[in-house]
Amino acid sequence: MPEIMNRQIQMASRPTGNPAPKDFCLVEGKIPDVTEDHLLVRNRFLSLDPYMRGRMSAAKSYAKPVEVGEVITGGTVGQVTQSRHPDFDEGDLVVTHGGWQEYSVVKGAECKKVNPSWPSPSLALGVLGMPGMTAYTGMKNIGKPVAGETVVVAAASGAVGSVVGQIAKIHGARAVGIAGTLEKCRFVIDELGFDDCLMHKAPDFPEKLKKACPDKIDVYFENVGGKVFETVAPLLNNFARIPVCGLIAHYNDTQLPEGPNTAPLILRDILVKRLTYRGFIVWDFAAQEQEALGSLAGWIDEGKLKYREDIVDGLENAPEAFMGLLQGKNFGKLIVRLG
Amino acid sequence: MPEIMNRQIQMASRPTGNPAPKDFCLVEGKIPDVTEDHLLVRNRFLSLDPYMRGRMSAAKSYAKPVEVGEVITGGTVGQVTQSRHPDFDEGDLVVTHGGWQEYSVVKGAECKKVNPSWPSPSLALGVLGMPGMTAYTGMKNIGKPVAGETVVVAAASGAVGSVVGQIAKIHGARAVGIAGTLEKCRFVIDELGFDDCLMHKAPDFPEKLKKACPDKIDVYFENVGGKVFETVAPLLNNFARIPVCGLIAHYNDTQLPEGPNTAPLILRDILVKRLTYRGFIVWDFAAQEQEALGSLAGWIDEGKLKYREDIVDGLENAPEAFMGLLQGKNFGKLIVRLG
Repeated sequence: MPEIMNRQIQMASRPTGNPAPKDFCLVEGKIPDVTEDHLLVRNRFLSLDPYMRGRMSAAKSYAKPVEVGEVITGGTVGQVTQSRHPDFDEGDLVVTHGGWQEYSVVKGAECKKVNPSWPSPSLALGVLGMPGMTAYTGMKNIGKPVAGETVVVAAASGAVGSVVGQIAKIHGARAVGIAGTLEKCRFVIDELGFDDCLMHKAPDFPEKLKKACPDKIDVYFENVGGKVFETVAPLLNNFARIPVCGLIAHYNDTQLPEGPNTAPLILRDILVKRLTYRGFIVWDFAAQEQEALGSLAGWIDEGKLKYREDIVDGLENAPEAFMGLLQGKNFGKLIVRLG
Repeated sequence: MPEIMNRQIQMASRPTGNPAPKDFCLVEGKIPDVTEDHLLVRNRFLSLDPYMRGRMSAAKSYAKPVEVGEVITGGTVGQVTQSRHPDFDEGDLVVTHGGWQEYSVVKGAECKKVNPSWPSPSLALGVLGMPGMTAYTGMKNIGKPVAGETVVVAAASGAVGSVVGQIAKIHGARAVGIAGTLEKCRFVIDELGFDDCLMHKAPDFPEKLKKACPDKIDVYFENVGGKVFETVAPLLNNFARIPVCGLIAHYNDTQLPEGPNTAPLILRDILVKRLTYRGFIVWDFAAQEQEALGSLAGWIDEGKLKYREDIVDGLENAPEAFMGLLQGKNFGKLIVRLG
């Protein structure tokens, strides 16, 4: 029997600014030995998420960066093909951080079984995984929407933003989304049930946002930064909360924007309006995982929480899909399906 | 018997940038009638506080601005000379917002009796008043210092900063102050018991701050902004808390600083380090007033909380003293004593 070979996408060079095809390479190699307490997993779905851009930078962050010549990290759902961990059997579907490759050898302790009752195991990478839990914990612990308040979120058709707005609605708040295309905006309003959704590229975006938020903004779930942030900030109400979960507009920045320096303005607004800005990473709230997944799954069952996946086929297409993600080209939770 | 006349300092013109003597004028006039539920108070101490600069601007803020021709607002301690409110008698010492004038007619409901057991009634304007309560509530609700953590505060010899650092010590945290002169720094270390205190004007201030905070910074009580903020920010630890209570370095700004625009840097730090910035005004925590004053008075009794007053005599000297306050010329809680 011929040895099974593994294919993986490695970081060929550290991207400067926008990642380019040359920064990635597809490499074929052997599968490492499966040592004790480990599993060999055949990956079926890779999750592409904006945070991965940060991992490709050497800048100090909350996780260690990917090095040149290493496989790109990322969440995966796959099937156990060999188990040396007592809790897992061959055939189990698990969610883990397998990276951009066909096969991963991972610690059993870092895998979780995917609930077989879910409509698709890929949901463990989206609405019932890290992005859904990000929306849930950010809203529960920081955003704290109250009935009648207004919640604004950008990337509103995306994996996190779509859940944020629907949680706002579940709490009786007004949900206003921001998205990149008219098609996405229609989906956010018609399918996800947001009260409104605006295109940030429209020249009259500031006026439209003002109209869409007649009582201004109480929660701004920050996942983009840039112009959207600048447009939202003047509309924040006293005591508004800003969970800071991502800044996709800046991930490819190679330098700070030109002046004037608006830092004193941000601080002044924090003071005068008594704002709360709080950054978080989903795993800061790891203890809430069961609660989050339980609530999210319950809302899906009740028809209160919709989701959309954007599925790309083939490992070799992961780099292009990822580059598109940073440009907002995906429509829904971006997933690469492996053959 | 000749009618008693009142002298008051009015805002003669709205200051642009640094307030100047021409922006103030001393006016003599009649005392208004004391209507029902009101008191006539002869002011003995005026409190000068940085927030008053904001009241002199037309920019939208949490309180309505002083208008040209109006008396400058401010906290006062005085003696009731006529009472039409059942809870107060002639001779009572009260703390209220009497403004920069010799006599004020104020609502009884907006006055509180000064505890006669305090060493001086003027403390009701400082360590046992708004500034002390600002430090207390900001630390209790936002800073939340824990034993072993490092707390940094600027204007460390001032009314708020001095209490912030001593509360840090009471909680077992390391207290590092920042002040404008060597004399103030010595006082902060030797009298107030901070672990260290640095001059922000020293050319090697960034290096010194780094050395004074070997475990970096967990709480930065923000009352100045500007260069101090920029120096502190890179030293913030993960999960650091930043109560934003004042921005004295910016109160006289007439325009934003030149670029580059560091706003994305602030947001990135919030995200990556999971910082909490939260603005507050002492009256957001009005319900904690008794607790705050009780704790502060108790700490004074126990010798754990020291204070220093900087007393200027004469109503006519209030404008100059206030202009000096904005330049950091005061040394301790700045108070004007009336004859």
